[in-house]
Amino acid sequence: MPQGQPVSVPDDGLTTRQRRNRPLLMVHTGIGKGKSTAAFGLALRAWNQGWPVGVFQFVKSAKWKVGEENALKVLGASGEGGSVVWHKMGEGWSWVQRDQQLDNEAAAREGWEQVKRDLAAETHRLYVLDEFAYPMHWGWVDTDEVVEVLRDRPGSQHVVITGRNAPASLLDAADLVTDMSKVKHPMDAGQKGQRGIEW
Amino acid sequence: MPQGQPVSVPDDGLTTRQRRNRPLLMVHTGIGKGKSTAAFGLALRAWNQGWPVGVFQFVKSAKWKVGEENALKVLGASGEGGSVVWHKMGEGWSWVQRDQQLDNEAAAREGWEQVKRDLAAETHRLYVLDEFAYPMHWGWVDTDEVVEVLRDRPGSQHVVITGRNAPASLLDAADLVTDMSKVKHPMDAGQKGQRGIEW
Repeated sequence: MPQGQPVSVPDDGLTTRQRRNRPLLMVHTGIGKGKSTAAFGLALRAWNQGWPVGVFQFVKSAKWKVGEENALKVLGASGEGGSVVWHKMGEGWSWVQRDQQLDNEAAAREGWEQVKRDLAAETHRLYVLDEFAYPMHWGWVDTDEVVEVLRDRPGSQHVVITGRNAPASLLDAADLVTDMSKVKHPMDAGQKGQRGIEW
Repeated sequence: MPQGQPVSVPDDGLTTRQRRNRPLLMVHTGIGKGKSTAAFGLALRAWNQGWPVGVFQFVKSAKWKVGEENALKVLGASGEGGSVVWHKMGEGWSWVQRDQQLDNEAAAREGWEQVKRDLAAETHRLYVLDEFAYPMHWGWVDTDEVVEVLRDRPGSQHVVITGRNAPASLLDAADLVTDMSKVKHPMDAGQKGQRGIEW
């Protein structure tokens, strides 16, 4: 929930309403828990506004079927809010033919190509690019290109990117950056991740 | 998503499975965005496990009808996951009679009394105590009592508490603490909160 008032009002020629409704680029980074969960919490708000939501999960393994996926699919199908499209790299992006056998690097790039196509077509109003900081950090996807494409995206499309080690130039370009800082985690006390909490 | 392995395995007489499934007390604090959204993202995972979820919104105003409320109610009613019960202080807790006219302090305490009753009865498996750090910080609810009740709660009940200025003794008692640190927020650039993003 927003606290208080803006500290300054910029001389940008926009009305308060125009400025308020500017599409945002948001980044959740840091080593603490809550980066992805907060992004999916944001997707609930978008869904509730009737916005089309596109999720791109840039994860390596298909082992992880997160609870958010089921939940958002049920919401998308309920007919009460916006639509939800869920793309997952782990199982091979649905639009990529099975016989292509992409390695992780090529798969990450292929995901980004689809994001670009969707942005150009204004397919969604909120994009959750989950764990997308990693392929940028690893150099699999060109960060300069990502920043340029996101800066020049048409219309009113919000984007949230999660993952550790988000590149500095992405943070520079972002409107909102939260660093999820770990103060304490059960793993430090020898407790492994558990269902319902970690996925 | 959990990264890696525990750094040490405690000599607590528990099996890995027992330790893994210990109920957690989680706190999302700090001045950055994402404390509540991450808590509601967690609720999606709990719902997906079929767990009963109880939400207690400790907010002062009834103005805020957050998107998460609609979304979780649709999910709870879908019959596909767990149940969802949503309690809201802003409109007056539903179990409190309208003619009681509680002030904010009394209302916060009344919310906590209900949390205690539900914990004792093991009503839910995940409790989202949204913005509950504030009444503790303000001294409206006794933090020592909260810590004691949460430490001694029966069964397998996970609790997540959000809000700035979470008291130190709560953090000490917690299994997981994330500080949502603000790196950048649109309000710093004179942009007010917008629907779909902030609520």
